[in-house]
Amino acid sequence: MVVFPELTQLDLTGPYEVFCRMSDAEVLLIGAALSPMRSEFGLTFTPDVTFTDSPQLDVLFVPGGRGISDAMQSQPLLDFLRRQAATASYVTSVCTGALVLGAAGLLEGYRATTHWLSHDLLAPLGAIPVDERVVVDRNRITGGGVTAGIDFALRVVAHLRGDRAAQEIQLTIEYDPAPPFQAGSPKVAPRDLVEELTAKRRKVQDERRKLIQRITRKP
Amino acid sequence: MVVFPELTQLDLTGPYEVFCRMSDAEVLLIGAALSPMRSEFGLTFTPDVTFTDSPQLDVLFVPGGRGISDAMQSQPLLDFLRRQAATASYVTSVCTGALVLGAAGLLEGYRATTHWLSHDLLAPLGAIPVDERVVVDRNRITGGGVTAGIDFALRVVAHLRGDRAAQEIQLTIEYDPAPPFQAGSPKVAPRDLVEELTAKRRKVQDERRKLIQRITRKP
Repeated sequence: MVVFPELTQLDLTGPYEVFCRMSDAEVLLIGAALSPMRSEFGLTFTPDVTFTDSPQLDVLFVPGGRGISDAMQSQPLLDFLRRQAATASYVTSVCTGALVLGAAGLLEGYRATTHWLSHDLLAPLGAIPVDERVVVDRNRITGGGVTAGIDFALRVVAHLRGDRAAQEIQLTIEYDPAPPFQAGSPKVAPRDLVEELTAKRRKVQDERRKLIQRITRKP
Repeated sequence: MVVFPELTQLDLTGPYEVFCRMSDAEVLLIGAALSPMRSEFGLTFTPDVTFTDSPQLDVLFVPGGRGISDAMQSQPLLDFLRRQAATASYVTSVCTGALVLGAAGLLEGYRATTHWLSHDLLAPLGAIPVDERVVVDRNRITGGGVTAGIDFALRVVAHLRGDRAAQEIQLTIEYDPAPPFQAGSPKVAPRDLVEELTAKRRKVQDERRKLIQRITRKP
């Protein structure tokens, strides 16, 4: 599990909880250095190993968050992803982690998903956007925004250890969701709320779009 | 948000993600000391303040996990909970955090819920067990196991800031869950899986039951 400053902590901690409960799994936080990294709201994560010292991974995972703009331009991080993706069984992301995979060229021609606000940024990175909560295309598994990480991780466990193992974890973490409102996606949320949030986030999304244009420009 | 060693990190990080997105909220991790604490699978959390230095809180929150057995016997932690609960607007928990609230005497006569495996331990602590994902009784708000923390936290935000604020957070974290299996509660999971998991956890649950008998015994 790749970590970088200003990530969205639940993108990471949702799948982390599920992966850690899988039999015979070692879950590593992997970062540029071994010093604690601050996530968006202050929670810190300390990498277990660095990009340089990491073993070859079976599952490569990238979370999203505000910090992806820097992550998408970090050569050590992008090189690490490319190196690991060459041999990993699964190359995966949650939320805007997909844009980081895309920046590394790892979603070229793959069906993928990301946070709904960033869905239109998949195509400029060569991915085929799919409006589903979890998208599996060959060995790429991508999840939607933040909380999609739990659905995503259970799907990954089902691929790795079978349905029964995933079900046991689901029962252990009592994942029988009951959202108090119908507001979890732009398809079901009140229209004016979707518009308000989209407007609020326009500046960030425009900056991301420009960044992607810049990094995908052929020399 | 109270932290202690061997807590279940998603009990904490689910609500943390939601609470941090609330307007005008300061979210603090509060522990016995300022040193990093290891959660069940290794992720560490560093308290922002200690039990001694904490300000008076509007919302008091307790997560669950393997570490509750020690937490339920920690006088500094129980004293802190009692002191804060006397003035807090809301006294809350997720998962087996309810048993810690109960050990502090804070659920006496209150309707409450907890992780399904520990539901039968609520009554011995004086609480009235209710089989719902989130239970609100006066100013006590308790959530079920692990992932119930997200439903729980959105309910808390709705109480504090109104439905619209909770809906905006729900849309931002794309909480439109799509569990891959029907296995998230003993009511819907395959019967043999429920029995297998119950058997696997019997020893831990028996120990908790004995601990509760001991700490609730009148002198």
